[in-house]
Amino acid sequence: MPSCGPKANVGDTLPRTLRLILQYDGTDYVGWQRQASGTSIQGLLEEALRPIEGGAVTVHGAGRTDAGTHASGQVASCRLEAVIEAARLVRALNAVLPPEVRVARADVVADDFHARFSATGKIYDYRIVNDRFVSPFLRRYVWHVGPSLDLEAMRVAALSLLGEHDFAAFQGTRSKVPTSVRTVRKIEWSGTGRSDAPLVFTIEGDGFLRHMVRIIAGTLADIGAGRTSATAMPEILASRARVRAGATAPASGLTLREVLYSHKIAP
Amino acid sequence: MPSCGPKANVGDTLPRTLRLILQYDGTDYVGWQRQASGTSIQGLLEEALRPIEGGAVTVHGAGRTDAGTHASGQVASCRLEAVIEAARLVRALNAVLPPEVRVARADVVADDFHARFSATGKIYDYRIVNDRFVSPFLRRYVWHVGPSLDLEAMRVAALSLLGEHDFAAFQGTRSKVPTSVRTVRKIEWSGTGRSDAPLVFTIEGDGFLRHMVRIIAGTLADIGAGRTSATAMPEILASRARVRAGATAPASGLTLREVLYSHKIAP
Repeated sequence: MPSCGPKANVGDTLPRTLRLILQYDGTDYVGWQRQASGTSIQGLLEEALRPIEGGAVTVHGAGRTDAGTHASGQVASCRLEAVIEAARLVRALNAVLPPEVRVARADVVADDFHARFSATGKIYDYRIVNDRFVSPFLRRYVWHVGPSLDLEAMRVAALSLLGEHDFAAFQGTRSKVPTSVRTVRKIEWSGTGRSDAPLVFTIEGDGFLRHMVRIIAGTLADIGAGRTSATAMPEILASRARVRAGATAPASGLTLREVLYSHKIAP
Repeated sequence: MPSCGPKANVGDTLPRTLRLILQYDGTDYVGWQRQASGTSIQGLLEEALRPIEGGAVTVHGAGRTDAGTHASGQVASCRLEAVIEAARLVRALNAVLPPEVRVARADVVADDFHARFSATGKIYDYRIVNDRFVSPFLRRYVWHVGPSLDLEAMRVAALSLLGEHDFAAFQGTRSKVPTSVRTVRKIEWSGTGRSDAPLVFTIEGDGFLRHMVRIIAGTLADIGAGRTSATAMPEILASRARVRAGATAPASGLTLREVLYSHKIAP
């Protein structure tokens, strides 16, 4: 059983700042962020915290995961006047949240901590099944690609993404960020693509543009299927043109695995 | 990608006997067997086969999995007049079945093959999470046990079940089989019980009584939690009294992993 984590030597004055580690199956939700209609993860958490606080609470998430996207290590922060022990808060929230959304841990942290603005990087997993069928147990968490993929071509193409680049070609429309320059620090592959062992593309960067991982996944699948040349990735990147990259791969395959901070969060 | 399997040197005369390997997430179904109300896996398959055959088809399953129980290797057999290549049959069935039910493969087999009567054994997995919370990605496939379990006591107690015994103490009521003597050939454990790495109790036997694996799991959890003595298992078994064993553990934790025949089925 994991420990309840260090008791931070902070939080003696109110309100205290809390950091939550969250896991969710995003299949049936509109995404992290509150929307005009539909149920969001942020909304669920804020509603669960309201009776504990005795008033409205605003929860800030590290990443605005899309509708249908999952998280195994989303991080959120909020400020609470209510005095409640962290382990009890975890139990209280999990008792009212739906089973698709779990609080894995809660900690009182330094007052200047902000889940989004303090983050120094993020790690995403994108899962692809490249088999005749998808395991019923993984169907909500993968993208099913039928045609046989050349995994080696995909691996080689992905290497071009490493380092600092303008990723405008891999940015969803309707995005309003000041710059599309990001640094991809690491890319790892695991799994075979079999129905019960999906191919997992793991990407770490200092930040990601809207739909960036999904557009990268769609482009890599085009390369794997031979629809796009295995050597085209540097040109697509340099073009900074969204039309040159592949389609946005389904949200179901994407999972926010971890959010990075200057100090690593104990598991 | 797995091969489509050997073309059996049989089936030249009609009807041919087909063997199907099935995987399903049983959460939302009434179990394998057709019921007066509710959707069964058998019923779904028979409905999917009907337009291919142009008439009613009866599908025989190797094991009658309970409502809410899963399968990663259920085996079924049926006889078809329709002439359809096995790989095409797999595609045709998966195209109409819900994503919770998948046909992993189909093969034409010898006419005397019967999924249930030809089976020489079965292997079941029972999954337990023994942590503060359950991963959202595994929530449908496990039993969540809160109190800390003594895994070593459970392992030792399970050893008493090995071999040929009268398992009447581990038989659900309303059972109508001629004998409750069964042979447990092998028991294996894996996983830690953590939210993302469930404890898996894997049991192989020549056959299982109604609810037998779930009652064993419930009894082992009682032993792990200290509610039942770690040395009580031989007495419970010898008593042949259902009341001496533990509660029937939830169906969600149970998965039919494999059905054994005199000739191993290629994966």
